[in-house]
Amino acid sequence: MVNRQFVLAARPEGMLRESDFRLVESSLPPVRDGEMLVRARYLSVDPYMRGRMSAARSYAPSVEIGEVMTGGAVAEVVESCNAAFHSGDIVNFQMGWQEYAISNGAGVRKVDPSLAPISTALGILGMTGLTSYFGVVEVCAVKPGDTFVVSGAAGAVGSAAGQIAKIRGARVIGIAGGAAKIDYLRGELGFDDAIDYKVVPDIAAALRDACPDRIDAYFDNVGGTTTDAVIAHLNTFARIGICGQISQANDTAPSLGPRMYRHLLVARARAQGFLVWDFAPEHANALSELAGWIASGRLKYREDVMDGFESMPKALIGLFRGENIGKRVVRVA
Amino acid sequence: MVNRQFVLAARPEGMLRESDFRLVESSLPPVRDGEMLVRARYLSVDPYMRGRMSAARSYAPSVEIGEVMTGGAVAEVVESCNAAFHSGDIVNFQMGWQEYAISNGAGVRKVDPSLAPISTALGILGMTGLTSYFGVVEVCAVKPGDTFVVSGAAGAVGSAAGQIAKIRGARVIGIAGGAAKIDYLRGELGFDDAIDYKVVPDIAAALRDACPDRIDAYFDNVGGTTTDAVIAHLNTFARIGICGQISQANDTAPSLGPRMYRHLLVARARAQGFLVWDFAPEHANALSELAGWIASGRLKYREDVMDGFESMPKALIGLFRGENIGKRVVRVA
Repeated sequence: MVNRQFVLAARPEGMLRESDFRLVESSLPPVRDGEMLVRARYLSVDPYMRGRMSAARSYAPSVEIGEVMTGGAVAEVVESCNAAFHSGDIVNFQMGWQEYAISNGAGVRKVDPSLAPISTALGILGMTGLTSYFGVVEVCAVKPGDTFVVSGAAGAVGSAAGQIAKIRGARVIGIAGGAAKIDYLRGELGFDDAIDYKVVPDIAAALRDACPDRIDAYFDNVGGTTTDAVIAHLNTFARIGICGQISQANDTAPSLGPRMYRHLLVARARAQGFLVWDFAPEHANALSELAGWIASGRLKYREDVMDGFESMPKALIGLFRGENIGKRVVRVA
Repeated sequence: MVNRQFVLAARPEGMLRESDFRLVESSLPPVRDGEMLVRARYLSVDPYMRGRMSAARSYAPSVEIGEVMTGGAVAEVVESCNAAFHSGDIVNFQMGWQEYAISNGAGVRKVDPSLAPISTALGILGMTGLTSYFGVVEVCAVKPGDTFVVSGAAGAVGSAAGQIAKIRGARVIGIAGGAAKIDYLRGELGFDDAIDYKVVPDIAAALRDACPDRIDAYFDNVGGTTTDAVIAHLNTFARIGICGQISQANDTAPSLGPRMYRHLLVARARAQGFLVWDFAPEHANALSELAGWIASGRLKYREDVMDGFESMPKALIGLFRGENIGKRVVRVA
């Protein structure tokens, strides 16, 4: 049986290119006892994948040249010799960038198709939604009356983070680029304000206008000059959750900016990097809460669906161009 | 009665100068009911005073031009119309840079001269020692086996912080400038290692050598390139306590350095600014613990005593040149 996979062809230098990936065909071995064969239905693309392609230190090992790209998927069980899974089951696991995989069931979570569209297991009811949840609730420790700012606000994580902060009683300001994103944040998602960083002449001034009482909590997805401006406008005892640094992802040299420790000192603020897996024991409870908010209409989400396995590289590269509103996934035919 | 005071003459630009201060004479009013007259015995000089001289935002109001410089003192009660204080009592409070003051007793703490030299109420048994204590215990949350790094390690706060981290079971590396300081840290204070930032060609390489298991906790007094190097070598779940940024204190423009959020993200580390006053309810217990460690010989301290009220400006300016080992105070004749 023939499988198609994307392997890492080259370590990217600067902005990702399609030539950093290579589509290969391989044959799948037969399914052995305890194993199952699954077919990808949706593959996730996420900014963290850029880090895995690099040899630089990160929180997880790098993908080696020639190795299948890492990534989450929603897949359907095609054939099972594992008693816990049956043909037709929908599952979610780190399948990698491939159309088929054989799994022994380790780390595989079943997805209930009656709860929500199965693709949401990669987004609002998966790693993305959980990242937003723990960033807002645990790391930013958002409380009623806080002024909460989120960068990358129209992305999968940012759009949920802002809504969760609103549910917790904060005044929410999103930072994003482009009129469509700003409209989405102010309109459909009900953010209190939104700043278009591509249009405002001075993001620091825009933040001062939007946050007259300064900033109590900041959910950072982007880093760079946006974050510099936020840090200079913190309120006393502010909390910063560092979730991503997408503006720096394709840099080839360390990015220089104003040193910001004095701002943390003066505000007695806290900046903390975090990873959704640090909260694994609490994931199940958080998923229930997220599902409840979706059901009651308090938490909205969008998916940006691209079609065809072969579009994976384009889909990922587009994240770094800010193409997407909401969670980008690739539907595999 | 004639009093001598130092008032702020000018907002400093760049490095402090003696001309930023002006010595003035004034007359003291008579002591009224509920008040007392005190005479300074020791005046404190501390890096935070540079911040008070500037109009830039800080955690406390700026000193106005013409206003008496702010600062802590150990003083002796000369005359009292306040039932809680008697002539001859030794007290500690924010007296400011002056030889005499009239106080109503608010915020005044009595010092027991039988416990330790009274000057220590400005240092190891005062704000300085408490800053070290809460920075290590609460903010850096140092635990046995941690690799702990402190910058400004031979200063008043740094030298105590390193010893407290050792008492808590950490491996302690100090960063300081000059052979005398390095000898002091390695010898008298028993630090596990010390790095002379003025001598090593590459502080990042020196840190990698001294901390093969990376850095679990960092007590930052200096900021700048030293801190840049530490942040790039953090261990997972590292904690950074931001206490001071003395290397930046006299800067006239924002200091540029490599942006470091990605390091915090990759290490899932936490950086937190703090102030000793944030822990006020716990001060009394901490002072008991510090006094016990001093009595048992586990916690050592040095004082750098300068003589004469008129030397206050020189004493403060010298802090920013790294002149002192241990806590600098001025003995008032």
